[in-house]
Amino acid sequence: MTSVTIFGAGNMGTAIDSVLSAGGATVDHIRSADPPGPVNGDIVILAVYYPVLKDILATYTDKLAGKTVVDITNPVNTETFDSLLVPADSSAAEELAAALPSSRVLKAFNTTFAGTLSAKSMGPNPTTVLIAGDDDEAKAALISAVQAGGVNALDAGPLRRARELEAMGFLQIKLAAAEQVGWTGGFAVVR
Amino acid sequence: MTSVTIFGAGNMGTAIDSVLSAGGATVDHIRSADPPGPVNGDIVILAVYYPVLKDILATYTDKLAGKTVVDITNPVNTETFDSLLVPADSSAAEELAAALPSSRVLKAFNTTFAGTLSAKSMGPNPTTVLIAGDDDEAKAALISAVQAGGVNALDAGPLRRARELEAMGFLQIKLAAAEQVGWTGGFAVVR
Repeated sequence: MTSVTIFGAGNMGTAIDSVLSAGGATVDHIRSADPPGPVNGDIVILAVYYPVLKDILATYTDKLAGKTVVDITNPVNTETFDSLLVPADSSAAEELAAALPSSRVLKAFNTTFAGTLSAKSMGPNPTTVLIAGDDDEAKAALISAVQAGGVNALDAGPLRRARELEAMGFLQIKLAAAEQVGWTGGFAVVR
Repeated sequence: MTSVTIFGAGNMGTAIDSVLSAGGATVDHIRSADPPGPVNGDIVILAVYYPVLKDILATYTDKLAGKTVVDITNPVNTETFDSLLVPADSSAAEELAAALPSSRVLKAFNTTFAGTLSAKSMGPNPTTVLIAGDDDEAKAALISAVQAGGVNALDAGPLRRARELEAMGFLQIKLAAAEQVGWTGGFAVVR
């Protein structure tokens, strides 16, 4: 059975839990107030805001070795709301992979708002999670776990495609903030 | 009446013509083999591959002054097929705007495959053209012309959002090339 640990229990952590639990995965959460303890899941999803990643790395790097680690962040500069905090030719996921050389880092869930994960649909479309990463086995396992929960998942290529996924996630947030799309809408994937 | 000149008559130029003509615009084309002549349209759409932009600039910069100029390119590095040819913190549209200071440059049509423009739908969704630019009047006129032709159009923000639109266009092309989506599919916009 797939075991998943989710850092965070906010909107995204809860929505991801609902999908993976529906697919039969065992899911537990680590909250920011929890004292450092073991990380049970084979798949670890960091459902936190981008600035929190460094705090998790400070405490948990050794415990994440050998695991699949999933970055869902959109590293938006919240002061300007006009760019990302990562270098333009990189991504939060690639930064995380560099900091976790013994983990298998994936990018996923950053292009799906929480509401579209929970509902498993976006307007007339099934919700689709885009997943990028360099480890094909880890990527296939996450795709299977998401699909088992009734949500589509697609291989979006190697981890360097996180740059494009984060650009798309940022644009989607900007469109929602500008009320051009709703928080239950956004970018759907049509096969 | 809206007058439009389209550079190019390939798949995209033809599809854009079909939408704008359906909306009542007068559309003519300038083909690469044509001798340099006048540019009639108030809106000029450069429906060419990215490397051709510099050739158009060499001949037509003065004739584009005062006009709305629409960049539709996805500046993919076709040797590596793994990155864009523009600096990571910029975009083809922003480069074009710098070269055409007397024109009103917009980014549009780079996230909609030709098939989804012609069909005016993508799966169960109406096709939506995302349009970025710094001149609100020019942007509103193009949005109106597209919508008159039966295709949705959304304001995607200032021209610097072209960076994200080009990332999204690139990712969409990569997904289609990898047969993860079809060339009649891709990213739909759900309100």
